[in-house]
Amino acid sequence: MRISPWFAKTRSRREGGRGPMMLGVRDHIQESSRADILEAAADCFTERGYTETSIDDIARSLGATKGRIYHHFRSKADIFAELFRVGMEMNYAAIEPYRALSGRAATRWRHMAFAHVLQMIVTRSFQRTVWMGVKMHLRGATTPEQRSVFAELITYRTEYGNVFREAILTARDEGDFDFDNPSIANQLMFTTLNSPIFWYAPRVGETRADIEELARQVVTCAWRGLGGKDEQRKT
Amino acid sequence: MRISPWFAKTRSRREGGRGPMMLGVRDHIQESSRADILEAAADCFTERGYTETSIDDIARSLGATKGRIYHHFRSKADIFAELFRVGMEMNYAAIEPYRALSGRAATRWRHMAFAHVLQMIVTRSFQRTVWMGVKMHLRGATTPEQRSVFAELITYRTEYGNVFREAILTARDEGDFDFDNPSIANQLMFTTLNSPIFWYAPRVGETRADIEELARQVVTCAWRGLGGKDEQRKT
Repeated sequence: MRISPWFAKTRSRREGGRGPMMLGVRDHIQESSRADILEAAADCFTERGYTETSIDDIARSLGATKGRIYHHFRSKADIFAELFRVGMEMNYAAIEPYRALSGRAATRWRHMAFAHVLQMIVTRSFQRTVWMGVKMHLRGATTPEQRSVFAELITYRTEYGNVFREAILTARDEGDFDFDNPSIANQLMFTTLNSPIFWYAPRVGETRADIEELARQVVTCAWRGLGGKDEQRKT
Repeated sequence: MRISPWFAKTRSRREGGRGPMMLGVRDHIQESSRADILEAAADCFTERGYTETSIDDIARSLGATKGRIYHHFRSKADIFAELFRVGMEMNYAAIEPYRALSGRAATRWRHMAFAHVLQMIVTRSFQRTVWMGVKMHLRGATTPEQRSVFAELITYRTEYGNVFREAILTARDEGDFDFDNPSIANQLMFTTLNSPIFWYAPRVGETRADIEELARQVVTCAWRGLGGKDEQRKT
C-alpha cells in the first residue's frame, strides 16, 4: 500500500494555521487564547530555559496581563505539563495515518519517521519543552506535585517510542534493517530524528519543499543507520 | 596504514586515572586540586544546569571551602570557560594520533570518530558543559565579559568540527561516503557521535570492552548514515 504524499495531512493544514512554521499547534488546540499562551510559553522556555522563565515573561511576550494567563492555567508548572502533553499528542496525530499500514515494516517506519521529523521541525519549541521535561524528570528536578503528572507524560512518550521500536524490530526480522543492539539502535535513531529541534533554524525565503527535503535527508540518515539499504528508499 | 587498536592511547591511560570513567581529565590537568574543582563543577552543571549552580554547591560537593575554589578561579564563569576549554583540549588530544593518517579519508574518519565517541562517554560531564556553553552563547545568555571568551572557545570547537568535515568530504570524493548536503551530513554525524553525552549512563559491572562495543555501534551508525558501506567497516 502506498500513501502519497507522505505529508498530505500536514500540508492540508497549511491554510488554517498561523503560518507554515506552526501548522500543527493551531489545529490541535481549539481555543485560540490557550494556544497563544502555549506558543508564547514554549518560545520562552526554549530561549531561556524553564526555571529562568516567569509567568511575567510569558505575559510580556504575549503582550497580555498575568491575569489572562491565570484565567487558563494555575501555574507555570501547569503550562509546562500542558505543553508536554500537546507536544506528544501532535506527534501521535502525525504518525496515526501510517501506524496500521500493511506491507513491510520498513516502509511503515519510513512514513512514520518522515511525519515525525516534520513535527520536530514545525512544532520544535513544543518538542524542546518535551525534551526539557524528560531531562528535568530524570534528574529529579520536578516538584513532588509535578512528579506524578510527569511520570504519566513520560509513559505516554515511551509508548510513542515503542511504536517505532516495534517497527524497526519487525523490519529487522523481515530482513530490511540490520543492527545489533535494539536499544542502542532505537536510541540512535531517535537521536537523529529528533535532532532538528536543536539545530534547525528557519531561513528567509524557505519553502515547504525545502523543509521536506531537509526532513528527507534526516530520515535517510536514520534509515541508513539502522542498516536499511538505499535501494529500498523509494518503497 | 593501520593503527591497532584504535583506542591504544586511551587504554594506556587507565592506570594513571581516577578510574575508568574519568581517564582523560587527570592526564590533562597537571594540578590535581584544580582537576578536583573542575570535575565537581562539571557534575554540578550537568545535574542542575549552569545558572542553578552556585560556587557554594561546587564547594559542598567537593567537601571543600569556597576559599579553596577562589584560590584557583575568580568566578563561576571562569570555571565554566575553563571546563569548556579543557573539554575541547581533551577532544583534540584524543584525535591527534589519527589526524595525519595516510590512506583513505574514510579510515581516518573512523579512527577519529571512535576516539571522539570514547571521549564523549568518558568525559561526558565536561562535554555536557561544552554543549551548554554553545547553547548559552547562541541564545545570548552569556554576559558581555563572557562573550569574547566564548566566541574564542566556539571558534576552537568549530575548527575541531572542521577536521571531521574535511575528512567526510574527502571520503566522499574518494567514493567511500555518499551524502547530499555536507552541512546536514556533518550535523547529523555529530548528532550521533555526541549523543552518548545525553543517554549514556554507566552500568554496574560494566567493563572497558562494553564501553568500546557501545562506541563501535555509535560509530557504525554514523558511518552508515554518511553512506559508508558495511563491507568497508574493517578497513
